[in-house]
Amino acid sequence: MVLSIGDDAAAFRAKKGFLTLVSTDALVEGIHFDLRYFSPEDLGWKALAVNLSDVAAMGGSPRYVTTSIALPGNKNSDWVRRFYHGMLELASKTQVRLIGGDTCRSSQGVFLDLTIIGEVKPSEMLTRKGARPGDSLFVTGELGGSAIGLEILRDHSRLAKRDPEIAHRHLRPSPRNRIGRFLAAHRLATALLDISDGLSTDLHHLCEQSGVGALIDADKIPVCRLSGGLSRLLAATPLDYALNGGEDYELLFTVSPRLRSKIPRSIGDVLIREIGWVTREANQCRIMSQGHSRKLSPGGFDHFAARPLAPAKPSMARS
Amino acid sequence: MVLSIGDDAAAFRAKKGFLTLVSTDALVEGIHFDLRYFSPEDLGWKALAVNLSDVAAMGGSPRYVTTSIALPGNKNSDWVRRFYHGMLELASKTQVRLIGGDTCRSSQGVFLDLTIIGEVKPSEMLTRKGARPGDSLFVTGELGGSAIGLEILRDHSRLAKRDPEIAHRHLRPSPRNRIGRFLAAHRLATALLDISDGLSTDLHHLCEQSGVGALIDADKIPVCRLSGGLSRLLAATPLDYALNGGEDYELLFTVSPRLRSKIPRSIGDVLIREIGWVTREANQCRIMSQGHSRKLSPGGFDHFAARPLAPAKPSMARS
Repeated sequence: MVLSIGDDAAAFRAKKGFLTLVSTDALVEGIHFDLRYFSPEDLGWKALAVNLSDVAAMGGSPRYVTTSIALPGNKNSDWVRRFYHGMLELASKTQVRLIGGDTCRSSQGVFLDLTIIGEVKPSEMLTRKGARPGDSLFVTGELGGSAIGLEILRDHSRLAKRDPEIAHRHLRPSPRNRIGRFLAAHRLATALLDISDGLSTDLHHLCEQSGVGALIDADKIPVCRLSGGLSRLLAATPLDYALNGGEDYELLFTVSPRLRSKIPRSIGDVLIREIGWVTREANQCRIMSQGHSRKLSPGGFDHFAARPLAPAKPSMARS
Repeated sequence: MVLSIGDDAAAFRAKKGFLTLVSTDALVEGIHFDLRYFSPEDLGWKALAVNLSDVAAMGGSPRYVTTSIALPGNKNSDWVRRFYHGMLELASKTQVRLIGGDTCRSSQGVFLDLTIIGEVKPSEMLTRKGARPGDSLFVTGELGGSAIGLEILRDHSRLAKRDPEIAHRHLRPSPRNRIGRFLAAHRLATALLDISDGLSTDLHHLCEQSGVGALIDADKIPVCRLSGGLSRLLAATPLDYALNGGEDYELLFTVSPRLRSKIPRSIGDVLIREIGWVTREANQCRIMSQGHSRKLSPGGFDHFAARPLAPAKPSMARS
């Protein structure tokens, strides 16, 4: 590191032979988060987690981050301090260094934008483009927990306090940088991305970029495990949340048949599950359940079409 | 360039032997701009110009940019297209490539955040830290024009249409990348920064970072030239705007006595003026006029203290 905060720009030296990775993700109050249930610390954690996940999704290692924060007049420097406290807690776990930023006023609402800088060897970089027909599809962790956590926080706040684990999935996601690096370093994956918009939507992203189709098995999708009491409160089935919920920040990747057996069942305490196959039919995603298959439409989050967060129940259809 | 828009992150290879520069600047509706007088094209231009200026202020060359845009529901994809049209007009002039971004909804107001990536040889990088007592202080261009343009746009909109040149200084500033590179490549400056917050404030930034003081000559400051009719309309004197107005994106730099004569009087059509000297008294900035000197306090823009743009006249004191 050469030059950090305090000048017109930060400066660093890229590691020899490595590519520099850059990704930007914004979080907007009322669209991506609600301060009724996000503490400044949670928000700092999540803003970094979302960006770390983009580097994980390239098989890279995160190195630096810059932060822009626009705050309305009712938020003071203590709010900013708490935000950075949460962010730097995750930054120190992941060896990421804050090298710049911009704090300014907004006339209404909190707006956050982080840019993460990472690195990867060219020969190890994983994109959305390499999936081939016959490859196996894998996902890490459990899916749907973030969207369920959001619903619990929004509609059952007392329950969220009593059982914070599910809320935590929404507030403090764990980016899968270790698994991304494992896949890249051992050249195990043909394509890789993170599940930020929901499995059904991100599976389409993968298929579009690779020019392939996919068939997944509903019974193999690692849906978020819930107590029966909690399940009964929800507006949709756990499978719906797993397919369309978004913001889980798990990884979705493809592996050639030759290397399929090299994928471990877990890394650390994160399970890795095979959920289906890559097919030849470009952009055709299908899901099968008990022997029948149907078309899988992208049902997840569209950042541009998103409407302000409503206090009402989500509009997910019960399948 | 290896990988651009469409994946989880962009990837590029840093030029061998160069440092990578990174800077982020946000622009918030109601704080930094008002859409009553900014077209989407102007805003795209300005958002990039502000960021290019940060790379100019390091003596570097800009290479890539990422853009985050949050838009309320009444702005559609045509607005985004027009924004990028203005941005890419300046990007193509400056050989900058858009490599990523994030477009999302906001519940209220437009929020923009750009991250610019540049490069500089370590031996050529210029920071705010190198000014030494006895160095000469120089500025590029004219100062105050942006703040005057803002006032004309806000309070005398008919005049702004009749005489767009002054409004243009606010809407479409010209970053001084060519001059920044000239100073760096010829190793002419000891310290360099851009004037974004106003000369009085940025001079303090320079002094703080270099541990020095400064004495500037009011009569040598290149104040924005105005017609008499326009001058009479303004809330403050041209010198006030030049000292405290901000957003001119000119360069402020220091030069050792030995190299002072090497600074040209202009580069392209941009004049370069010597306005004073660096002194020993740490953090003491003074301004002299007709033989008398007085303390110069930072009177420019404080991003965090800024209140939403009011339709009223600016609160600058007439000196």
